[in-house]
Amino acid sequence: MKTFAIKPIDRSIEDEIINKIDNLTKPKGSLGRLEELALRICLIQHTSTPELKNPHNVLFAGDHGILDEGVSVSPKEVTWQQLSHFSKGGAGINFLCNQHGFRLVLVDAGVDYDIPAGHGIIDMKVRRGTRNFLHGPAMTLEEFDQCVERGAQVVREIHSEGCNVISFGEMGSGNTSPSAMWMYCFTGIDLKRCIGAGAGLDNAGIRHKYEVLSQAAANYSGDDIPESKIAWFGGLEMAMALGGMLQAAELGMLIIVDGFIMTSVILAASQLYPAVMEYAVFGHQGDESGHKLMLEAMNVKAILHLDLRLGEGSGAVCAYPILESAVRMINHMDSFQSVNVTKYF
Amino acid sequence: MKTFAIKPIDRSIEDEIINKIDNLTKPKGSLGRLEELALRICLIQHTSTPELKNPHNVLFAGDHGILDEGVSVSPKEVTWQQLSHFSKGGAGINFLCNQHGFRLVLVDAGVDYDIPAGHGIIDMKVRRGTRNFLHGPAMTLEEFDQCVERGAQVVREIHSEGCNVISFGEMGSGNTSPSAMWMYCFTGIDLKRCIGAGAGLDNAGIRHKYEVLSQAAANYSGDDIPESKIAWFGGLEMAMALGGMLQAAELGMLIIVDGFIMTSVILAASQLYPAVMEYAVFGHQGDESGHKLMLEAMNVKAILHLDLRLGEGSGAVCAYPILESAVRMINHMDSFQSVNVTKYF
Repeated sequence: MKTFAIKPIDRSIEDEIINKIDNLTKPKGSLGRLEELALRICLIQHTSTPELKNPHNVLFAGDHGILDEGVSVSPKEVTWQQLSHFSKGGAGINFLCNQHGFRLVLVDAGVDYDIPAGHGIIDMKVRRGTRNFLHGPAMTLEEFDQCVERGAQVVREIHSEGCNVISFGEMGSGNTSPSAMWMYCFTGIDLKRCIGAGAGLDNAGIRHKYEVLSQAAANYSGDDIPESKIAWFGGLEMAMALGGMLQAAELGMLIIVDGFIMTSVILAASQLYPAVMEYAVFGHQGDESGHKLMLEAMNVKAILHLDLRLGEGSGAVCAYPILESAVRMINHMDSFQSVNVTKYF
Repeated sequence: MKTFAIKPIDRSIEDEIINKIDNLTKPKGSLGRLEELALRICLIQHTSTPELKNPHNVLFAGDHGILDEGVSVSPKEVTWQQLSHFSKGGAGINFLCNQHGFRLVLVDAGVDYDIPAGHGIIDMKVRRGTRNFLHGPAMTLEEFDQCVERGAQVVREIHSEGCNVISFGEMGSGNTSPSAMWMYCFTGIDLKRCIGAGAGLDNAGIRHKYEVLSQAAANYSGDDIPESKIAWFGGLEMAMALGGMLQAAELGMLIIVDGFIMTSVILAASQLYPAVMEYAVFGHQGDESGHKLMLEAMNVKAILHLDLRLGEGSGAVCAYPILESAVRMINHMDSFQSVNVTKYF
């Protein structure tokens, strides 16, 4: 697998940044999470005057063999239909990207359909959907490596255009199943608690999904190393996002993590390169049951709680103005030293 | 007191709006609180194509006689110093207003200082600070009426400039004490649970604040009607914001409620005109202890949870992009009828 040189954050300017934040004209700590996010962004950029430049949301799409087991209400054709719909501009992720000045990059990672050329969808297809992981690996290790390399390539191109803040989204009918498996493999949380309704299963559907995934876990016969589990249970769009995140961290970019699926992706990525976590903030905690538990297991807190469960990167892009607020705070607020206000604490 | 003709929301188009939201290209309900906020805004504006126009944050400032009892770490001079600082542009509320296109309107409701003219601060001063409500009413009923009328006047002028969405902020050293009293009077929650650290009290300071407010509650000898309690325990900036909110509701504007203090203001306003609540959304749940309890007692949920405790309207303005997202969602997303995506639920 391609290797990434992800540097641990240099904390030598941490005291200087905290001191700057504490001397802004407000009671100490009174801007709460804006202060915490400003510190994180400053540390990533190694400066006390950070900037967010040219934000991108990269949306990887792929299909899933496990869908054959009836684990989702969303039919397979919705993957390509929605990908095509994103390219025309009227979907959920489009209005959010337009609102916050994100460029939306669409990537076919492994859709089981011949996407016509000419719609601006980047063709990185590794194969037409994964295999059904109930009976064997969803992808080979070679296919996983290909995904990682292609995801990294997309991010390198975006970075070369001056982007330093990136979110990742996904489209893939059935992909809460591979995400639940990654969560289960890498947090050790009871499988039952990793499983939710996805795009809209009822209780009987959730029970069936549990039975299928439980059997899949029992059938696992790969090595006891992260790569094997990632490839066995993963999705092509998820593996490509994993490569994208590792590349973004290597390049020192700020990663905004979306909901349940993208949280499972950075969880998997952190099994290979723990330092990737230092480059990430978590945009949104959704209502897919396991998401709260997974974030807690990773010891991180999402910025927003809006009960979104759309995917596409929507929760990450929605959180962007809060990151902008954090950056404006540290760059534009006066300090007590510069104005006539009594510092009383 | 000036009367307000606040119309209950006309729900005749509610089904039409819900139907429109449910047919946007996403799993039903998957945009969570954006869907709920879009419905609220549509109902207020009585349209399925809502618009947010020319947002304003009106910041009322006033001083508090109760400060003499040592209930806050923030000295009185901070009120006028900060008001003056806001007018120069380098405070917390300034960067947020600039970020989200809010005009900031500064109003002297009752600062105990002669604010020099020429800084763009509107002079609506009713008196130089309230009286100490430990020993008697903070303001007379006539002064309360004056506050309501002047707050309403400010809002009428803003509305005449084409504004249909408004938030209210405050600056007033010590004003978590009157807010705690309003909360106590109008929710019946144990006074101890209405009291928090304000701008930064330690535990001993919070105990002292409780003893002072507890004694003030025992000393109350006014009538058992909301107006009397509002005037007895209130702040001039809070009473003026109360008038502003009632006027905004009468004019059919969307009100974004800020944190603890402004929540106590709309709580008090709703004792006089319950329908004001239908025009409000709650921007932020802060970490002042009683805020969560007060929101629960009012049966409302804040949009953001960012541990802010700055006041100034910051929590309300910070939430604005989420409201914009809700409006963009209902106006710009395609419906299943208009594009080729399988509706599978």
